Amino acid sequence: MREALVGSRVWIDGEMLRAEEASVSLADRGFTLGDGLFETLLWTGHDIRYFDDHMVRLANSAKAIGLPLSQSVEAIGAGLTALARDADGQAAALRLTLTRGSGPRGLLLPNPSAPRLIATLAGFTRPTKPVNLKTVTINRNCGAPSACFKTLSYIDNIMALNQAQALGSDDAIMLGTNGNVACASSANIVIQFAAQNLTPALEDGALPGIVRGRLIQAGLIKEARISPQMLAVCSRAALTNALIGVRLVSSIDNRQLDIAPSWFGDLMDGL
Amino acid sequence: MREALVGSRVWIDGEMLRAEEASVSLADRGFTLGDGLFETLLWTGHDIRYFDDHMVRLANSAKAIGLPLSQSVEAIGAGLTALARDADGQAAALRLTLTRGSGPRGLLLPNPSAPRLIATLAGFTRPTKPVNLKTVTINRNCGAPSACFKTLSYIDNIMALNQAQALGSDDAIMLGTNGNVACASSANIVIQFAAQNLTPALEDGALPGIVRGRLIQAGLIKEARISPQMLAVCSRAALTNALIGVRLVSSIDNRQLDIAPSWFGDLMDGL
Repeated sequence: MREALVGSRVWIDGEMLRAEEASVSLADRGFTLGDGLFETLLWTGHDIRYFDDHMVRLANSAKAIGLPLSQSVEAIGAGLTALARDADGQAAALRLTLTRGSGPRGLLLPNPSAPRLIATLAGFTRPTKPVNLKTVTINRNCGAPSACFKTLSYIDNIMALNQAQALGSDDAIMLGTNGNVACASSANIVIQFAAQNLTPALEDGALPGIVRGRLIQAGLIKEARISPQMLAVCSRAALTNALIGVRLVSSIDNRQLDIAPSWFGDLMDGL
Repeated sequence: MREALVGSRVWIDGEMLRAEEASVSLADRGFTLGDGLFETLLWTGHDIRYFDDHMVRLANSAKAIGLPLSQSVEAIGAGLTALARDADGQAAALRLTLTRGSGPRGLLLPNPSAPRLIATLAGFTRPTKPVNLKTVTINRNCGAPSACFKTLSYIDNIMALNQAQALGSDDAIMLGTNGNVACASSANIVIQFAAQNLTPALEDGALPGIVRGRLIQAGLIKEARISPQMLAVCSRAALTNALIGVRLVSSIDNRQLDIAPSWFGDLMDGL
């Protein structure tokens, strides 16, 4: 299956539709205001990796921004699994989008709101080549909803990635607005520093990533405040997210890092 | 005309459609990632207020985030004016939304991109009652695209408004991540301090508002760094945006302000 825009079917509010029949209202607040959340889940070819973790994060985030989850976890699991049949047994990326639904003009929350829940499928091949990273000037807004939750308001991360690529790099390192290291444009970061594997704390602008959480739970990495000075001398680094799992970093700000297959293996074994 | 979700017609990429025929692709990056811009323009009943100012801001913002403007300014003006006929000679709010169009999964900018430009109309009655404001804990991300441009990534402002209302206030005062006063949830702020009318500087997280720009140009307000301490002792305050023009503030953080019709009149005369 090629990496299509959207698979041949789409799951919307509990119903399966053909992709060409599916669209969203111009009044949907996900479209007008980035008012919603999403999860990107790995279809391994036979099941959804970390489904429960994704559902816990989505439910917590939805509660925090006052957005009711309109379908049961069981219904979501069944919908995603049905959708993933289009992947023909191959790995794929499932995207689940929850918006606050349609509303009148303006920022005021509709009361009651009629949220929309949409799942789509795209082909996915896990990248294995180590990535180059460069620190960019666009920061994560520490403590704000846009940094604490995986919301639809992604413009800062988009432009951070774009800035990194304009500098000749594969991806960005974003600092938090408090000056510490936060994350890459769509992944958490882990660095090896003083023989410890560290990942930025949530209050420094990191998203509570699914793989990040698994690795913390397995005792393989730990949360810490990471200053730009620590980043400048770390010996190894990796990116993590639910799709890629773990991916090694080959350089940060033009400084080559140690690409250690054994270290990578240790982290991957924790998943 | 009532304040409808969307008027009876919608203008998309140069074509006028009936609203019920119009929708947006699930792969549109405006929907999936808040990747786009918008302008809200006042239809006075017979023309578009500050049309040229809005077009200059949109073109500058679009250039900054690498998003081509897909229609000429003349075509946009004609489209908006045609759409505004549905307002039957009454005041209305025109919304112009420019997205990066559809793209594959992920943050990478499609190259080339096929941007979408959409205009909708909603009823609008100018509010005249002075507003209560409270300072909230959600900050504007100083220097980031989400604060410098009127992007579709609005979740922080939405939740700031929501927090203010939960505190019993009409609207929020957001500080910038550098600790200075930035703006309300969807308006600029002006305070009277030491006999001067001041408005937060762009680098403190304020959006370059259309009415704000007009009042600066008219010499009626000036840009300044406004600390929370200055806010705590200002004598008068007002909100400004393209729809409301100027609106007086009756209290900030439970402190009553001087509601001066003559001051309000002076500001309105500058428009």
